[in-house]
Order: sequence, then structure tokens, then C-alpha cells
Amino acid sequence: MSKTVNFGVIGAGYMGKAYSIALNTVASVFPLSAKPVLSLLADEVPEVVEAKAKAYGFERRTTDWRALVADPTIDVVAVCTPTFLHEEMAKAAVAAGKHVICEKPLSLTARNAASMAAAAEAAGVKTMVGYCYAKNPAAQLAKEIIVAGEIGEVIHFRGTHNEDFLMDPEAPTSWRLKESLASRAGALGDLASHIINMAHYLCGPIAEVVADSQIVHKSRPDGKGGRATVENDDQTNLIVHFDNGALGSIEASRVAAGRKMGLTYEVVGTKGAIYFDQEAMAELQLYKGADPTNRCGFQRILVGPAHPDYGSFCLGTGHGIGYNDMITIEMRDMIEGVAGNRAVWPSFRDAVHTALVVDAALRSQAERRWVGLTELAAEMK
Amino acid sequence: MSKTVNFGVIGAGYMGKAYSIALNTVASVFPLSAKPVLSLLADEVPEVVEAKAKAYGFERRTTDWRALVADPTIDVVAVCTPTFLHEEMAKAAVAAGKHVICEKPLSLTARNAASMAAAAEAAGVKTMVGYCYAKNPAAQLAKEIIVAGEIGEVIHFRGTHNEDFLMDPEAPTSWRLKESLASRAGALGDLASHIINMAHYLCGPIAEVVADSQIVHKSRPDGKGGRATVENDDQTNLIVHFDNGALGSIEASRVAAGRKMGLTYEVVGTKGAIYFDQEAMAELQLYKGADPTNRCGFQRILVGPAHPDYGSFCLGTGHGIGYNDMITIEMRDMIEGVAGNRAVWPSFRDAVHTALVVDAALRSQAERRWVGLTELAAEMK
Amino acid sequence: MSKTVNFGVIGAGYMGKAYSIALNTVASVFPLSAKPVLSLLADEVPEVVEAKAKAYGFERRTTDWRALVADPTIDVVAVCTPTFLHEEMAKAAVAAGKHVICEKPLSLTARNAASMAAAAEAAGVKTMVGYCYAKNPAAQLAKEIIVAGEIGEVIHFRGTHNEDFLMDPEAPTSWRLKESLASRAGALGDLASHIINMAHYLCGPIAEVVADSQIVHKSRPDGKGGRATVENDDQTNLIVHFDNGALGSIEASRVAAGRKMGLTYEVVGTKGAIYFDQEAMAELQLYKGADPTNRCGFQRILVGPAHPDYGSFCLGTGHGIGYNDMITIEMRDMIEGVAGNRAVWPSFRDAVHTALVVDAALRSQAERRWVGLTELAAEMK
Amino acid sequence: MSKTVNFGVIGAGYMGKAYSIALNTVASVFPLSAKPVLSLLADEVPEVVEAKAKAYGFERRTTDWRALVADPTIDVVAVCTPTFLHEEMAKAAVAAGKHVICEKPLSLTARNAASMAAAAEAAGVKTMVGYCYAKNPAAQLAKEIIVAGEIGEVIHFRGTHNEDFLMDPEAPTSWRLKESLASRAGALGDLASHIINMAHYLCGPIAEVVADSQIVHKSRPDGKGGRATVENDDQTNLIVHFDNGALGSIEASRVAAGRKMGLTYEVVGTKGAIYFDQEAMAELQLYKGADPTNRCGFQRILVGPAHPDYGSFCLGTGHGIGYNDMITIEMRDMIEGVAGNRAVWPSFRDAVHTALVVDAALRSQAERRWVGLTELAAEMK
Repeated sequence: MSKTVNFGVIGAGYMGKAYSIALNTVASVFPLSAKPVLSLLADEVPEVVEAKAKAYGFERRTTDWRALVADPTIDVVAVCTPTFLHEEMAKAAVAAGKHVICEKPLSLTARNAASMAAAAEAAGVKTMVGYCYAKNPAAQLAKEIIVAGEIGEVIHFRGTHNEDFLMDPEAPTSWRLKESLASRAGALGDLASHIINMAHYLCGPIAEVVADSQIVHKSRPDGKGGRATVENDDQTNLIVHFDNGALGSIEASRVAAGRKMGLTYEVVGTKGAIYFDQEAMAELQLYKGADPTNRCGFQRILVGPAHPDYGSFCLGTGHGIGYNDMITIEMRDMIEGVAGNRAVWPSFRDAVHTALVVDAALRSQAERRWVGLTELAAEMK
Repeated sequence: MSKTVNFGVIGAGYMGKAYSIALNTVASVFPLSAKPVLSLLADEVPEVVEAKAKAYGFERRTTDWRALVADPTIDVVAVCTPTFLHEEMAKAAVAAGKHVICEKPLSLTARNAASMAAAAEAAGVKTMVGYCYAKNPAAQLAKEIIVAGEIGEVIHFRGTHNEDFLMDPEAPTSWRLKESLASRAGALGDLASHIINMAHYLCGPIAEVVADSQIVHKSRPDGKGGRATVENDDQTNLIVHFDNGALGSIEASRVAAGRKMGLTYEVVGTKGAIYFDQEAMAELQLYKGADPTNRCGFQRILVGPAHPDYGSFCLGTGHGIGYNDMITIEMRDMIEGVAGNRAVWPSFRDAVHTALVVDAALRSQAERRWVGLTELAAEMK
Repeated sequence: MSKTVNFGVIGAGYMGKAYSIALNTVASVFPLSAKPVLSLLADEVPEVVEAKAKAYGFERRTTDWRALVADPTIDVVAVCTPTFLHEEMAKAAVAAGKHVICEKPLSLTARNAASMAAAAEAAGVKTMVGYCYAKNPAAQLAKEIIVAGEIGEVIHFRGTHNEDFLMDPEAPTSWRLKESLASRAGALGDLASHIINMAHYLCGPIAEVVADSQIVHKSRPDGKGGRATVENDDQTNLIVHFDNGALGSIEASRVAAGRKMGLTYEVVGTKGAIYFDQEAMAELQLYKGADPTNRCGFQRILVGPAHPDYGSFCLGTGHGIGYNDMITIEMRDMIEGVAGNRAVWPSFRDAVHTALVVDAALRSQAERRWVGLTELAAEMK
Repeated sequence: MSKTVNFGVIGAGYMGKAYSIALNTVASVFPLSAKPVLSLLADEVPEVVEAKAKAYGFERRTTDWRALVADPTIDVVAVCTPTFLHEEMAKAAVAAGKHVICEKPLSLTARNAASMAAAAEAAGVKTMVGYCYAKNPAAQLAKEIIVAGEIGEVIHFRGTHNEDFLMDPEAPTSWRLKESLASRAGALGDLASHIINMAHYLCGPIAEVVADSQIVHKSRPDGKGGRATVENDDQTNLIVHFDNGALGSIEASRVAAGRKMGLTYEVVGTKGAIYFDQEAMAELQLYKGADPTNRCGFQRILVGPAHPDYGSFCLGTGHGIGYNDMITIEMRDMIEGVAGNRAVWPSFRDAVHTALVVDAALRSQAERRWVGLTELAAEMK
């Protein structure tokens, strides 16, 4: 492993830290084709970037993300900023020939996401979007079970991504609640996008949707003594059809009392079913229809070395796997994608699908009708 | 308790047995205003009715349900037959001045259900429809928590009624799969009706719906060596709005691998949430938003004597309550309704609401649009 | 079913009610060789016996249990009184040629229990002791799995019976806390006896024990303004060896905060394991060692018609089974034992084994050493 | 953070890798008083140490652990070798003035452990033993709850550490099954030591024990075509008394079918209880006795930033924490202990207590009697 992959990370906040932890960790967990280097951290606040660059172990720091993007030594740019900044940064990086890993959702609209994907494809760089939950060994196991036909033909998907971080009506507003900074897709864009991506990963593309949503708390403290209008949904429900004919429902909420990381999915097939809940992230429930009637029931499979990627972290089944471990797997995928010239999933292109579903849901809510993805895709041409 | 309430039961099958068990049991469980008498059992098959009347402890038997309805000693007629027979039997009973408890769903259409309700109201008799799951002490506790405002204002309902008794594509057809005998509402009519009724019980009436459904297995063995077309849905999804503004989703399936009695509901309020799963029928999960951040989480409440009706069965919390116990509570409600002239829930009128939601879902599927219940109600006038 | 079995029940309290419910219910649930008749109820309090006999549906009542025992029409005497009364009542019943079902524990000591068993055997009557939890379809399934060798040779048993009904130090005293009325075995006699009986049922006889116990709350309100000394254990732990060589642990508590009906067992075999918790009484967890490493895990089996006795109550898997249903199965066993002259389990003789384990535990606690059951058995000769 | 702490790790296997991952990770997770440096890796196999030093990111490597211990630049020696090697290595490190973190169990006997602790104390160095499960935020929360008196006075502890990695009778032998290399304490030494340490952490020291154990599979393949005798226990049960008067049971097995990481504990107090299962490592169950009777039940607390150490890994409650995260917390504690001169838990001295309990259990098994820890401690003087 004499090769290196130099990472430049934009944004020293929550996800910037998570990426940094993962980049520090990944080489000792996985055999890699190249060694990641925490080369350069960018954040516009001088004190923050100074402190964090040191804490996270970056070689250098800057307050100018454009300088990071332009830096000739950087191989991969990681965009860990609020959504409304993704497009400009990612396009600049792509234009500079950088590979890009960008936080989710990719952009404010499917149209913008598609333009980012097109730019990256034209530049021939690798891209990834941070839908980390699909990297969980349990999710990879779910995919393996489905692909192998163990539950038969998929006929139904039910997914949720429910949290309650905004259940308090007096929780203050933020960029996430502004249409201009986060689009009209609130829980839909921020949270549903995760479970839509998971649906895509497990069951393939979605064909059409009907949806509705609500803003439960119409205004929130603006942090300056006044109230700010909440401009996007607190909770959303979708019914979907998949290209393969399966029926599904998707739900997201940021006001779902009691749910802290309620990303759940149940995939029903003609021969069995799987169930997963991220709040118990190290297990997958499997029902095998071929079991005898008097010995059947959901089986709680604890992930272990017999399942994808787990064994690189720990040799003991059921010993546990955590949130940052999923980010570490993301970094492994990105490094191998770049150093080994392998396909990376989900790419910007894959994330366009998620964005199309979100936009279709928004249109469905506005026009109170079923909306096919082909309709939106056609308009984007 | 010198008064008696004489029961005539039509149908000696599954539900006929359940009612009989409950009628034999109820007087030793609850203090009652009148003693139930298993007076007369009707079933068209002579050998069946003879054997079952003896086994269940009925005083008399008949193969002619019309004779049962006409019998002057009968106070309450219980209709435990396939759906397509409900209307004629119940109307005949009502016309004879009998109180009626009828299995669910009440009828093939909301229009028919409404006509049954109107007939009963005109006759001034008590009616009940066998949506038994609302009688569970855990469900009564859920209602109590909601009514008391413990979870604040209800903002979301997610309900399912998933089973897998038809997941085998070679499971034979039955009356339940025929449009003429069970309507075009398959899982929707048979199973979703339970969770729609529960939604009604817990959160109030539903205002409008959008829905879609699927027939997964298009034909099934007809029992005569051929194949019969399946004429109603195997799985259905709805998005609903409640009159009170809450958003919701409802799902039902008879091909949901692994789910045996998957009647579940999560009711989210502005201050908390409750979750229930009939497969663990003696517990209710409660989340209280007022709990401190570092001591919060769903609490597993095992039903016990501190909760509605449980203490009449058993003095020990968590000792367990079963399926037939819910039917026993239904019988208590019916007996008290008749003997004490009290309101009974859900009456035929209450069941009309469930039927309207089902019909609205059917129209929404057919016309691919949102359908308000007022639209259907207006047409019925 | 022209034959009848006439029951006389002594004690109109908690268990008297449970037995009455079950006797009213059983004939409509199960096909029976004879019809049970609630013939005579005895309780020393005139108002109680009058009210309860009517409520429970008994034909007659008495305040004199000796009259009940002497009544020539009574076939089965049910002893539902505090433990210290069991021996006199059961022996009188046996002497009068009655079959007897007696609540648990059978008697205050193994010696007394053995004398009761000997009397019954000499009289040639059927006996049963009310260790109801072994009648649960889930427990019968557990037994079936073990007997069939599905989990291989049993190597370990861990059982608990934990409740918290006395966790409040100000909960008043009762006969259960008095040595003279309930022996020095408190939680050990009242609760551990259930799980010891279950261990016996599932894994065979116990050979030797070491144990220790504690009285956590030394005195309690005596109901007259003073304090009463607590004379037997609040919590007890045992290590046991089974005759078949398996190792085990048994635990009981009446002060185990949060446990309402914490009868749990995990039986480990060389090829698999089972786990059960009475607080989720309608399911059994099964681990099959033969499953492939990447598809293994405990399977949650919901009891249904494919399992013992469940289908007589309900045709739907996972629909639920309750506390009183276990008592109903007990009554079925007793009726069939009497009317069909079949073996009944657990008989007084079987319960002597449970009593020996309890007494061995008491001696082990007192003398701080391992105590073999043969030691106690030898002394009883 | 200009200071550094140079780590030398002996052993490039399972735990050597875990430590390396944690040392690479810790500085980006926690604010630290000094920066850890992966300075030197020792392993006797040249190819292994070369490959692993590179993979794990060590600056240097050696096949001679004595050279590592003698290296003047090394601040902390991590002993990640089989148990029988711990004493020599740790004593050499201590003699060279190094701080030492040693894998569990500390040594083959309490006597040896005590001599290691004495040597370290004489040298004035910091020591830690790798009982990592106490570092879990959920375990720290459990401790916090107990210390705050939220569950009242602790009256009972039930702990298990069950795994099934040797349930297959044809799984080959290893050093862990040899008395000379792992003592006569098999599951007792390898696994029970974890839960004994946890009991110590949560409830304080243990005063006396009674125990028994079994070798279920008497011999195993020796890897050379023959059979090797198994020389220590496959499963063990203890009853214990704590210094504070609480009663407890402890259980360990390496043949417990289905349990992959079955470290569980239930701590019962006079006012509440907690329950934990490492297979669901990111949650703690809490029962608060003060809750009203009709709103009580175990509460599932998902660990989050409101609990100890979690927020440094991730800002979202319930997002998950993994096995290696616990090791990362260990490394933080060791670094802060060394750089900040703070107490470290569990030190060699703390681990002597665990070793004494193990030795007392061995003696109890051999002599079939209760054994007090004071007895063994006295003999060691």
C-alpha cells in the first residue's frame, strides 16, 4: 500500500468529524489499495478549522473551500456542508478533476442533482453520496438475501425514517426548515431520502408515487426573540410502486415522538421476509417461508464475520457494530473506487433517483395525484 | 342477576365457536346485569349443528336460521357467517326486534352497511360489529392515554393488519377471494377493516384517503382440479387524513410472509407516542416526551388489574390475556348494552364509517385519486 | 358426552375464580369425554360463597368444606385455599374417594406432600397440582422440541420466577410471609416451585442443589398498626444438577422490581436452545445449531394451531392465548384423567419432587452446603 | 495537544488489531491531553508483524517483545497475547517503567495477578486491564443510575456471559482449553471474568461464592489427527454475596447455543431495576418503581449524547455504537491516565478482585463449599 489517496474535507461540523474519524480508522480495519491521508480541512470559521484540523489529524487547514478544491495534491473532496452548498462545491471539485464524496441529500432538486451527476460523468471522476445506512453489514446481508432469491420475488416494501429531534414545538428553526436552503422537502428531503435510497438499494428503482405531508409546528423560535415560519414538512407519507411491480410505503418524520433513529424496513417476498430497525443496527430479522408450520417465525440474525464487512471490524458475532463503522465502510468504498478504479455506490447518478422520488412526492402533494418518475425525468431533458 | 339474555348464534364455524366460548365464560369473569343463555345454534349442515350445539352447550339447535331469527325467546342474534350473508340475516333479525351482534366486515359495501344501520336504528335495537381487537385491555389503555391527552394532540397514525395465511400461491381459493361474496376488497375488507376500525376508535373519523392495492397471486386452485381467478386484493396501502387533521398510513396484507397477527399501530402525538402489536397482545409501548432526555425511551407496559377489564380475568399483572378474552369482553358489552340499555361500540352505525373508508379506498384505487368520505356519504343519500 | 364430572371447589378467592372460569369454558373449547359440572362451591364466609356461587355458576354452595368433601355426588375436589390448609382438605377428599386437584405448592414440606401422595395412591384417585405454566402451548412445544432431540442433549437450564408484588417495603404482611402458614420457603415456595416444576417437566428430575436466599424487608405492616416480622425469603438463588447430568440455575424473587410474571427459562442443548418468558406467553424462541453460520439466530415462534392445544382455542397463529386458557387446559387434563382414566401431570407424586427440591434448598441455605435429594428422600422413609 | 503518548503493542492478533484501530481513532473522537502514537508493534512471526505493522499504521515493528519493552521511547506497553504470557511481559514492562494495558484475564491465578499489581504499584505506573464492556456508554449509564440511587439499594445482581463458539464438539482445541496456558478456569476465566468485573464495577466487591461447572465436551480434535483432553470448564454457575449484602448469580458458557455475545446483567434495587444485553449494546432497560401502577414497565433507553462518552462519537441518539468504540474509550482512559495522571479503571489491582472471585469459584467447585474471598486473600500474604 504505497499509494495514497489525499482527502480534502469541506466542513468541520458533525459529518466532517464523522468522516475524519472514519478516515483515521479505515486503514487499520480494512486491507486497502491505497492509504488515505487527511490532507486538508476547510471551514470558514478560522478558530473552528484550526482546532478541528488539529483534533481530527489533518495535515493542513484553510478557511477557503475554493483553495481546497484547487489544491493539486487533493485526490478526493468530501463535501460535508449544508445541502444548499453542495452543488457549487461539488461542481467546482469535479471541474478540478477531483473525485467527490458528498453528504446527502445531494442537492435541493433532482434537476440540480442530475446536473451534478452529468458534470461528474463528463469529468470521469468517482462520486459517492453519503447514504451511509446501506453500508451496514445488516443492510448488505439484506441485499444478499434478496439478490439470492431467498425471500422469493419482492412484493412489498415498507420503510420509515422517523426521528423526534424537532418534536418540541419550541426547538429553534435552522437552515433545514427553510425552503431556500433545504427545499420544500423537510423530513422528506432530510430523512425520507435515506429510506428511499435504501429502498432503491434493496428493491430497485421506484416508478411512481403518491404522497402527502404536514407541517405540524407552523413556526419556531428564530433565535432572535421572534418566530420563523417553518417552510417544509415535519412528516410525510408515500405510497410507491417499484419498477419491478412491488408495492410499497415510505414514511418520514422529524416529530415522531420516541423514535431516535427509526430507519426501519420490512421487505416482503413471495417466499419470506426481512425486517430491520436501525435502533438495533446489528441484527436482521429473517422469515423463511419454507420452514415447517410448527417451526416458523422471524429469526434474529446477529451480524458477525459470516456477513459482509463485519469481520474486518471484529471477529466475534454479535459483539456490535456502530454508526461510525458504517462511515468507515463508505470510506473504504471510496478509496477502493478511486485507487482500484471500481464502481462506487451510491454515485451522484444513483442519488438522482432518490432526488426524483423526493421531487415526485412534492409534486404529488401539491397536485394531489400520482406522479410517475418518467414525468419528471422527461422534463429535465 | 335473575334476568337472562338469550342468545341465538347463526354459524357454527370459527367465530361461532369463539362466541360460544365467550358466552360460556363471561358470567364467571364479569359481574353482569343479566345472565347470558346459549339458547339456540343455527347451522345449515345437520351433523355440524348437532355436534356443535352439544359441544358448545346450546340448549337447542336448528338448520334454519330464519327459525332462529323468528324465535320469540331469542333476545340477541349473533351473525357468524360469511360477509355476503350478513345483510339478509341481520335485517331479518332486526325486523324481528332482535338485538344483533354481527361479525366483521358488516357488509359488502358501505351502502349496504348503512342500510343495515338505518334498519337497526329504526327498530331501536342494540347492535355491535365484531371488531374485537379494540376490546383488548391494551387497546382500551391506548384509548385512555389518548383521551387523557397524555401524548398531546394526535398528529400521526400508522396501522397495519398483516397476515400470511395466503402467502402460499397454491393455497386454495375461498369465498373470501370472490368479488360476489366478499366484494373487491380482499385484504382491504377482511383485514384492513380491523385496523381502520381501530384507527377510528383511537383517533376519530377518517376524512379522506388515497390507496393502492395488488393481487399478488392472480389465480389459485379451485379445489376441483382447476384454477380460480382471485378477484380482490392481496395487499393494500392507504394514506389517510383524519377529521382532526392527523396524517396516517394504513396497510393490510394476507400475503405478508412471517406476520401471523400483524395488527400493529403507532399513534404519535405532540407529547408522546404509543405502539402496539397484537402478536404481543398483553403489552403497550408508551413514550412520554416529558421524560428527561437522558431517561427517555419507550416503556413496555404489561397490562394488569390497573388497566381496563383485565382484573376481572386475573389479578396478576403480566400473567397474560388471550384472543378469546377479547371476545368475552365483547359479549359483556353486548349483554350490558341490552340488559342495561347502554351504548354499545362499535355499533352498525360505527361500522358504516369503516365501510366508507374501505369503499373510498376502492374508488381511490380505481380512479387513482384522493377520495373524501363526504363524497361517498353524499352519494348514499 | 353424556357422562358428567361433578366438581366441588373449596375457596372462592383468586384461584377459585380461575378454576370456575375454566370449568365454565372448557367444554366449548375441547372435545371431552365427560361434561364438567360446577356442582358445589365452599367458602367459609357466607356472603362470599353466596355471591360467588351465583357469579361463577355453581349449582350449590356451602360454608363447610367438610360437607363438600363428604358430598357423594362430587367427583373432583378442587383445593384453592392457602397452602397450610391443603393437606387436611386433600387427605379428607382422598379418604372420601374423591379425585383432587390442589393448588401449588402442594404442602408445607416434602414430607407432608409425600404423605398426601401416598394417601392418594392408596385410594387410587387421580390427583393434579396446579402448576399451570406447563400447560401453556409454548411450554408443551418446548417439551416436544426437547423430547424429539431437536436441541440435542440438554446441558443447561436457567430458570427464573421473578415478580415484584412485594417490592414496596410497606406492602402489608400476609399468610404467605409466615413460617407456620407458608413454611420458611417464601419466594422459594410460592414462586420458585413453579419454575422447579417446569425444570422437572422439561429436563427431568433434579439430583442436588446448593442455594441461598435473603429476606430483603425484615418486617412489614401487620394491618393493625404494628409491624410483623417477615419469616421467609424474598429472593432465592439455586444451582442445581439434574439426574441427566445437566447443570442449572434457578432464581425466584417477590421483590424483583419490574418483573410482573418473570417466569423464564432457557434450555441449552448440544444442538440448540430454547428460551421462554411468560410475560410474552404466546411465543417460544428456538435456536437451531444446524442452521448455517450466516443464517442462524433465535427464531421467534408464535404459538398456533400447529402446536399442542392451541387450535382448540383459536385457529389463527399468533392471535394470542391467555392465563385462563392454561387453567382451561388443566381442567381438560383433569376431566380426561378422571373420565378417561388417563395419567394426569403433575400428580401429587410429581409435586413431591418439587417439594423435595424446595426442602433441599432450605437445608442448603441453613447448612451452607450441597444437598442431594436422595438425602431427604431417605429421611422420609 | 503537543504531548504524545507512544504505544508499543505486543501481539498482532485479534486484540492487537482492536487496540490499533482504537489508537488510530481515539484522537479524532475525543479531546485528549496527549496524542497517541502507534510507535512499535511486536509479534514473533516476522511476516505477520511486517504486514500488520504496515496495515495498522505502526511506525516500527519487531519480533522481539523484550526489545519493545526495553525501548526507551515507549510510554505504554499493550499486552495483547494469550493469558499465560501476560505476567512475564507485564512485569518486564513495569520494571522498565512503562505504563501497561493488558488484556483480560490478567493472569492465570489471583496470586500471580496480585504480584503483577504489586509490581506495578511499586513502580508507580498506570495500569489497565481490558475489561472493555464496562466502557460502553450503556454500562456507564447503568453505573450512573446505581450511584445516584435511582434504583434504591442494590439487592440482587444476575449476570451472564454466554457464547457458543465451542458448541460444536468437533471445534478444535486451543490454548484456551489447556490448564497450563489458561488455568482450570475455562469459560469461568475467559468469559465469566468479564461479567464478574462488571458486577464489581456496578455493585462493588464480591464477598463469597459457591460455584459449579462442567466440561461438556471432554475432548476435541488436536489439529494433528488426534484428540486433546479439554482441561477446563465449558460452563459455570456461581451464587455470590456482595460486600454490600446483595445476593447474586453469575453464569458463563462457551457452549451456550445461540448466544453470540450474551453478556447480560439485571441489577435489582429496592426502588427499581436495570437490564442490559450486550447483543443490543446501545440500549439500557430501566424500571422505575416510583412510576404509577398503571404506567409502569421497563423503559428502553437508547444511548445518546445525553449519556457518558456517546456524544464524542455521534450526535444522534440511537444511531448506534459498536464494539471498537468501547476499546476507543479504553484508550482514551489510558491516555488520560498517563498524560493527565488520573486514576484508570480497572487497574491491575481492580483485576485482582476478579481473579480472586475466579479462584474462589474454582476452589468452591473442587471442595463443594462456599468460599470467602478473605480466605484466598489471606493465603496470598
